[in-house]
Amino acid sequence: MPRRKGLITTYGTLFAVKTLGRLGEREAIRVIDGIVNSKVEIGIGDDCAALDVGDRYLLITTDMMAAKTHVPKGMSPYDIGWTLVAINLSDIAAMGGIPEGVVAAIGITRGHPIDYLEQIVDGMNDCAQRFGTSIVGGDTKEHDSLTLCGTAIGHVKKDEILLRKGAKSGDLVVVSGELGTAGAGYFSLKRSLGLSEAEGVLKRPWPRIKEARVLASSGVVTSCMDISDGLSSSIYELSKNSGLTYEIDYASIPKAKEVEMAFHDTERQKSLVLNFGDDFELLFTVNRESEEELRRLSVKADCPFSVIGKVTSGEENILVDDGKREKLENLGYEHFRTRQS
Amino acid sequence: MPRRKGLITTYGTLFAVKTLGRLGEREAIRVIDGIVNSKVEIGIGDDCAALDVGDRYLLITTDMMAAKTHVPKGMSPYDIGWTLVAINLSDIAAMGGIPEGVVAAIGITRGHPIDYLEQIVDGMNDCAQRFGTSIVGGDTKEHDSLTLCGTAIGHVKKDEILLRKGAKSGDLVVVSGELGTAGAGYFSLKRSLGLSEAEGVLKRPWPRIKEARVLASSGVVTSCMDISDGLSSSIYELSKNSGLTYEIDYASIPKAKEVEMAFHDTERQKSLVLNFGDDFELLFTVNRESEEELRRLSVKADCPFSVIGKVTSGEENILVDDGKREKLENLGYEHFRTRQS
Repeated sequence: MPRRKGLITTYGTLFAVKTLGRLGEREAIRVIDGIVNSKVEIGIGDDCAALDVGDRYLLITTDMMAAKTHVPKGMSPYDIGWTLVAINLSDIAAMGGIPEGVVAAIGITRGHPIDYLEQIVDGMNDCAQRFGTSIVGGDTKEHDSLTLCGTAIGHVKKDEILLRKGAKSGDLVVVSGELGTAGAGYFSLKRSLGLSEAEGVLKRPWPRIKEARVLASSGVVTSCMDISDGLSSSIYELSKNSGLTYEIDYASIPKAKEVEMAFHDTERQKSLVLNFGDDFELLFTVNRESEEELRRLSVKADCPFSVIGKVTSGEENILVDDGKREKLENLGYEHFRTRQS
Repeated sequence: MPRRKGLITTYGTLFAVKTLGRLGEREAIRVIDGIVNSKVEIGIGDDCAALDVGDRYLLITTDMMAAKTHVPKGMSPYDIGWTLVAINLSDIAAMGGIPEGVVAAIGITRGHPIDYLEQIVDGMNDCAQRFGTSIVGGDTKEHDSLTLCGTAIGHVKKDEILLRKGAKSGDLVVVSGELGTAGAGYFSLKRSLGLSEAEGVLKRPWPRIKEARVLASSGVVTSCMDISDGLSSSIYELSKNSGLTYEIDYASIPKAKEVEMAFHDTERQKSLVLNFGDDFELLFTVNRESEEELRRLSVKADCPFSVIGKVTSGEENILVDDGKREKLENLGYEHFRTRQS
C-alpha cells in the first residue's frame, strides 16, 4: 500500500483514488465483510456478532466514539462515558440479550486533567450498573484527541435471539418509545433552545435492555434492530436483511413533542423524525396476528410499542404521508459523509 | 467538570491541574480502578478480565492503537491490522486462554483510500486465522487520525487460568523466546539499519497462544503475563501482584542477536533488553522443583523457556549484572510519558 500511495502522490492521480469520503461507511463495511473469513454464522451485519456456546449465543459488539466527530458540544465527560456504554448495551438489547460486561478503551491527551478521565469513567460505570452489568476491564492510551471504544458482551438463549432478518410479508412494523427526541436535543444544544428533556435524551441514551428482553421471550418478534442512525436507515437495513419491503405510515410514528419545538418547518421536522437517529429505540416486526399480544407486552415492558407500518413484497420501501405514497429514501446518518441539516 | 475547567481557565491555575501527562498511565489506571464497581473477581489489573461462566472463565481484553503515537513509521496498513489483533491475542495467551473471536473498531479519515482499509482488515483477518480464531465483528467510524481498537474474547478452564498473582518465594522466573528483538527492529526502522528479521518481529508480533496453552495445562506455572511494555515493567507488575520481589540475572536473559547490531553501547543494549517492550513474550514463574519439567514443556511448545531469576522476599526487585546487584527500576514504556531513547 505505501507503494501505491507513493505513485498517487507522484503522478497526482488523487481523484482516481476511492477514498472513504467518496464511498461512505456502508461501502466500507461491504469491503470489510468481503475480506473477513469469520467463523460466526449469525451476526454478520447484525447489531452484535453471535458466537455459539452450547444452548446460548454469546453476543459481542464494539463501538468507537471520537469526541471531535461524534460528540455534540454540550456533553460533559460524564455524558460521554455514559453514552459509550449505552450505545454498546443498545446493540445487546437489539439482539434480545442480557449484558454480561463491558470493556472500554480510552484514548486521551496528556493535557487532560485526571478529573476529566474520572468523570468519563463515572459515567461509564453508572450506565453499566443501571443496566445490571459492570465495567470489567479496559485500556488507557495517549491519543491526540479524545477517543473512546467500548465493547459489550452478553448472552441470549438460542431460541430467543432477535435478528435483523426473519420478517415475513404481512408482519407489522413496530417502534418503541418516541422518535426525534435526540435530534431535537441536538438542535436545542446547538441553538440554545432550552429543550432540556430532549437534550437529556441525547446526552444520556437509554438502551432498551428490559424492553427487548420482554420482546425476546415473547416469541412473537420476527426481526429487530436498534435505531442508532435514523428510522429510514434502519428500515433500509431490515429490508436488506429480509429481502422484503416496508410500508411506513408517517402519521403513526410516535413523535417527540420537542420535534415541533425544534423546527417550525414540517419538512425539517420530518427529516428529524425519519433520518436523525441517536434515539436508540427498538425497531421490530411481529406476526400480523400479534397486535393484541403487543399491547400486553407494552404493559409488561412499561414502554409504548407503536405499530408504524407493515412488511410488504413491493418494489421499494414506501412512506405514506397525508395520503401520498413516496419512496422512503435511506437518508440516515452515514459516517464519512456530511451530516444533513 | 466543565465548570471546574472554566474556573481553571479563568483564574489561570493550570499548573494546579493534575493532568495525565503529569500523572502517567499507571496513576490513571489506579484512578479508574477506584471508580469502577466491577462484578469480576479475577482479572482486575490482569491481562484480561475473567468472567465466571460455569466450569470456565470467559476472558475479555481490549487494546487501542493510535497510529500517530503507537505505530512506528515503516509499518504498512497490513502490519497495523496484524498488530492490533496480535496484541489482543497476546493478552488472551497471558491468561492461558483459547481465543474465541476478535472484534475491531477502526477510526479512519475520509481521505484514506479504501485499499488502505482493505489492507488493515487483511492483516487483522490473517492474524486471527493464523491463531485459530476470526474477526467476528467490528465498527468503522470517521476519525481525524487513524485509530484502531481491538477486543479479543477467549476462554480457559478454571483450573488452568494463568494470573499475574500466585508466585511463591523461591519460584523460578522464566521468559519465552528472546528479548530485545522488537526494540532492535524499532531502531533499525528509525535509522535504516536493515535488521529485517527484527523489523519483522516489531511489525508482526507473534502472540504465544500455543506456548501458553502448553504452560496452562502443565500445572507448574504459578503466575504469568505477557511482556508488552518491557521486562522491567512486567517484573514490577508481577511483584505488585504477588507482594514478593524478583531477582533477575542479566546474563541469563536470552537476548536477540540484533540487540548488539542496533547499539554498540552496552548501557543502551541493556535498556533495550530490559525496558523497551513490544516483544510479546511470556514472563512466568514455576515451582522451583520444575526445572526438569520446564525443559519438557519447552520441547512440547517448540519454544525456548529460559530461567532468568527467582522470586524472593527481599526489599526490592534486583538485577544482578556482572556480579553487581542493582535495583531493577521500573523503566518500561508508560503512556502519557515520553519514550526513552
